Amino acid sequence: MAYFDNNATTSISENALEVYRRALAEDWHNPSSPYRSSARIRARMELDREELAKDLGLKKEEIIFTSGATEANNGVFAHFATQANAGLCCLVSPFEHPSILEPARYWFKDKIRYLPIDQEGRVVLENIENLLSENNICFVSLMAANNETGVLQPWKELAEICFSKGVFFHCDATQWIGKLPSDDFDLCSSFSVSAHKFSGPKGVGWFASKEPINMQLGGEQEMSKRGGTENYPAITSMLTAWKEVRFQLNSPGNRTEWRDQFEKSLINLIPAVKILGLNSPRLWNTSMFVLPDFENLSWVGKLDKLGFSVSTGSACSTGKAGHSGIAQSMGLSTSEVRRLIRVSSYWEHGESDWVNLLSAFEQVSKELHQEGAYSSVISF
Amino acid sequence: MAYFDNNATTSISENALEVYRRALAEDWHNPSSPYRSSARIRARMELDREELAKDLGLKKEEIIFTSGATEANNGVFAHFATQANAGLCCLVSPFEHPSILEPARYWFKDKIRYLPIDQEGRVVLENIENLLSENNICFVSLMAANNETGVLQPWKELAEICFSKGVFFHCDATQWIGKLPSDDFDLCSSFSVSAHKFSGPKGVGWFASKEPINMQLGGEQEMSKRGGTENYPAITSMLTAWKEVRFQLNSPGNRTEWRDQFEKSLINLIPAVKILGLNSPRLWNTSMFVLPDFENLSWVGKLDKLGFSVSTGSACSTGKAGHSGIAQSMGLSTSEVRRLIRVSSYWEHGESDWVNLLSAFEQVSKELHQEGAYSSVISF
Repeated sequence: MAYFDNNATTSISENALEVYRRALAEDWHNPSSPYRSSARIRARMELDREELAKDLGLKKEEIIFTSGATEANNGVFAHFATQANAGLCCLVSPFEHPSILEPARYWFKDKIRYLPIDQEGRVVLENIENLLSENNICFVSLMAANNETGVLQPWKELAEICFSKGVFFHCDATQWIGKLPSDDFDLCSSFSVSAHKFSGPKGVGWFASKEPINMQLGGEQEMSKRGGTENYPAITSMLTAWKEVRFQLNSPGNRTEWRDQFEKSLINLIPAVKILGLNSPRLWNTSMFVLPDFENLSWVGKLDKLGFSVSTGSACSTGKAGHSGIAQSMGLSTSEVRRLIRVSSYWEHGESDWVNLLSAFEQVSKELHQEGAYSSVISF
Repeated sequence: MAYFDNNATTSISENALEVYRRALAEDWHNPSSPYRSSARIRARMELDREELAKDLGLKKEEIIFTSGATEANNGVFAHFATQANAGLCCLVSPFEHPSILEPARYWFKDKIRYLPIDQEGRVVLENIENLLSENNICFVSLMAANNETGVLQPWKELAEICFSKGVFFHCDATQWIGKLPSDDFDLCSSFSVSAHKFSGPKGVGWFASKEPINMQLGGEQEMSKRGGTENYPAITSMLTAWKEVRFQLNSPGNRTEWRDQFEKSLINLIPAVKILGLNSPRLWNTSMFVLPDFENLSWVGKLDKLGFSVSTGSACSTGKAGHSGIAQSMGLSTSEVRRLIRVSSYWEHGESDWVNLLSAFEQVSKELHQEGAYSSVISF
């Protein structure tokens, strides 16, 4: 396994792929049509919803299927547009995913307040109660785990505080779900998920909410909360991937240690490397660091030739230097941003994969130093 | 082929299915990532976009891939929200799909104006220039073909009038694309399409627009007009279906005659049947009619047992009597709405399929009369 960009997307599991294929071939009828072949699909889709709700400690009606977390994150902000117009504020972390920050800026304009963060890139909850009450906050949004550094955020604590204050709390759970236990998401007012981050297909996810929030208008699908023909093949494929991953969530084994050992060895190899969030609890699969020399795309290109896929940050900002949300929030310089690398494993990676990745970094480091490679940002 | 509900959804073509399966297995990488496997997918996706643009007489940058027409229809209305807030009006037909009418009501509230229609359920363009200028219209939306009756709308003429007046014209082309030639959609300011209406997969479509309009905020995908990981497997499967269907569009053969013959025979069989839009140009695949006796769901259920899938109207309003947009617009009574049936064929249907469908209606008619079935709306 030399693919180390699982925070960008995962490969689909064999079972999820086969279920998708079969549903495309056999269960393509419109789930909302009035004959039996459709009724059967509708019934299966509702069983999928029920099983997922049970896993998450939610009511069935609280879950709607979407095209992914970007749709859901957009939808939940649009829902608060009237409150934004009435002058109320939203409170978000400065390193939320663009699918949170851009809708926040669009709808709340100058009424966005930012959660304070520490040096590890983790939100700090001191003074949070004052922050909530002094700023007319109607809506709080915090990601569960950062997509770039993997740093775990205090979303459970914040969810409980918001609940006690009667403030709506949304959690972008995209990077957490499928990697860590999902028991506590019932603390959130709402949360969003994308299947392709946990070996499900692209173009599908779920949005769970305690309050009725519309995603797409038009049609009575998804309890009238999301118009549009239900994408049952994608939904049932997602559920297949979910059922495979959910049992692993409590047993990460030594995965954190393998990642930590990689980082220790990397520091030995390149002492000036700066690992982001090193001293914070992080997703067991993620490591993001600033290399002291050479543009990140030089590293990425050479690692790619050795068969290793790593990234320069989140895929949604690839190739655009300076667009890393976490880098900006943590005060990295432009030069540092251009030397950022993110590696992210998945369940199938063993200790030896991390060891091999380190060897690849070692070889690329040698090559780059031999070539005396200069900065050159490849533009896409 | 006893499936006569292709306006609700089509089965995926064998090639589109195989392309989907292969892309799920092999081309699952994030198209926005910085290594070669991703770059290859990105390049293929752009070739798909280019080929589609060429077919439609558009520029490549004018097409963005979406999760389907419902997303696009929502997005284009949300784009005009600021103009709606400024007191400008939109002009729509009264029988637009809910994914148009609901966003229209949401954003434009009491500033919606309706296009006049005739007895066939077709928009009338007399006085349209006055209508446009007297009502501060900033945005016009008309479907190309009605999803329920199949009646073709004067969208080309309206697009040209709007263009000459400098008014934005959006066309919901969902039912037209894949059934009739698509050469003239470059007349529209924007139009929306769903792949699952032309033997592509669900959960994907395209939105074409002369002006930059955002669908989803967050991320720089789709030229920053639609955030979210690109669903390449679905996109390339859609393009496969499109390439299969596009060559047929100019050669419908005798398909209109087969449908017409079905209707003539149906009138012979049940003289009191009322066919909607009978005297208007319609999609060659669609027939919608009010039967004189028995609830439509009684017909649907018995036809289903004989192996024939037909519907009671659009799938998005199935089971909700009185929700048929076209029925309401054409002034049908509640009782008539409960006796509405829509049948919709596809390219693979031959003359004999229509003949067999008529035989099925004949048999069901006998059965229902023998049983003296009473009205009973099955609720979903």
